[in-house]
Amino acid sequence: MSTKPVLHTILSPKLLDIYDVSNSIVVVIDVFRATSTIATALFNGAARVIPVDTVDKCIQIGKNTGGITAGERDGKVIAGLEHGNSPAEYPREFVEGKTLVLTTTNGTKLLHMALQNGASEVITGSFPNLSAVCEHLIESKKNVILGCSAWKDKFNLEDTLFAGAVISRIKEHFTIHCDSSLMAENMYELHKDDLISFIRNTTHWHRLAQYGLEKDLEYCVTPDRANILPFYKNGDLVIKES
Amino acid sequence: MSTKPVLHTILSPKLLDIYDVSNSIVVVIDVFRATSTIATALFNGAARVIPVDTVDKCIQIGKNTGGITAGERDGKVIAGLEHGNSPAEYPREFVEGKTLVLTTTNGTKLLHMALQNGASEVITGSFPNLSAVCEHLIESKKNVILGCSAWKDKFNLEDTLFAGAVISRIKEHFTIHCDSSLMAENMYELHKDDLISFIRNTTHWHRLAQYGLEKDLEYCVTPDRANILPFYKNGDLVIKES
Repeated sequence: MSTKPVLHTILSPKLLDIYDVSNSIVVVIDVFRATSTIATALFNGAARVIPVDTVDKCIQIGKNTGGITAGERDGKVIAGLEHGNSPAEYPREFVEGKTLVLTTTNGTKLLHMALQNGASEVITGSFPNLSAVCEHLIESKKNVILGCSAWKDKFNLEDTLFAGAVISRIKEHFTIHCDSSLMAENMYELHKDDLISFIRNTTHWHRLAQYGLEKDLEYCVTPDRANILPFYKNGDLVIKES
Repeated sequence: MSTKPVLHTILSPKLLDIYDVSNSIVVVIDVFRATSTIATALFNGAARVIPVDTVDKCIQIGKNTGGITAGERDGKVIAGLEHGNSPAEYPREFVEGKTLVLTTTNGTKLLHMALQNGASEVITGSFPNLSAVCEHLIESKKNVILGCSAWKDKFNLEDTLFAGAVISRIKEHFTIHCDSSLMAENMYELHKDDLISFIRNTTHWHRLAQYGLEKDLEYCVTPDRANILPFYKNGDLVIKES
């Protein structure tokens, strides 16, 4: 009998409730751009990232903590917040030692759903920290849910491709019997050598490219440029020490 | 400006509410096996198929109409019904001229959701009637929702592959700007030449194969063996005359 832990992929927050996450590590994936920004800010020395689900909370917690308020709705900076959701906004010279309070359309929402549903651990994943995620999942030997944040609950390709990249690297260590995972891995294998050109066909690319964010998006599909592991603990995302 | 109608793919009934179906043809897809059975029964001369969402309704309507009661839950025949959900159970010599009252786990449920959400037309699609579906969608020049019935709301590959087969044939006639459709077409193109062997990797295949239904499943991924168009009208699925 196999004693490997089980891995599932969830293609939209709307599908999270179908799965039992209570004994699982949930990997929140929001490639464009929340989880790429989280990894980057922490890699560049941010003390912590506080993910919040509303703009009001973002402003309030920013006041209480003296943190930088940041976020987006529909891909744009929100009135009342200081910064946006671009990894390029958080270089070391700006973010080191600081608290970032972040609210985004999709990623923050899924993270809070996973917590409410009783996930035993929540981490965030994106291409900039692909290797750190994979190593942690292999070492933990726990069940895994790869949670795609999607776009307003609609399936998206960029999060699915990241799930596929993870599966492609760690599948020998898990029992995977889930059509979503099989599809995600297929799609990643099909496009891993043309990721940047393929991503230009996706709906989210078109949505963001009109704001002039092409450079951001290329960064967001490049592996291991901010290779740390963001880990949720008492309301904060901080780097998990191995 | 393009005047092509718009096509979307929905990967689970749970995602239907995100889309506006009110001016659209909804294609209900349940490859294993409801929509394959519906096409086959009508192709073999059934007067109509009445899709119902509960076993009680199935038995009641069977009594009222003198119809054959049929259905499955979790892939098995239900106590109290006369027949199952296998296309092989409905040859011409058995089904011709008769009414089939059918309840299934996933397909019937999505069909009723589409009706409740105000779809302007509901048809059913499966590989046995692939060409009939494609020809109708091209001729209609209306917006299209390809609705995958999934498995208890979980994404499945067989319905997605059928959506991809449709998209691959008709895409020049539609505006398609939807990651689900792009993925479905990619997956179909990747596996169209090894469909029967690839399908053996899917979770649903494993679920059904244990009941000895391998022959059924091969039939269900073979195009145009029952090439008519089931069309929902006043509670019945009947053949749409072109």
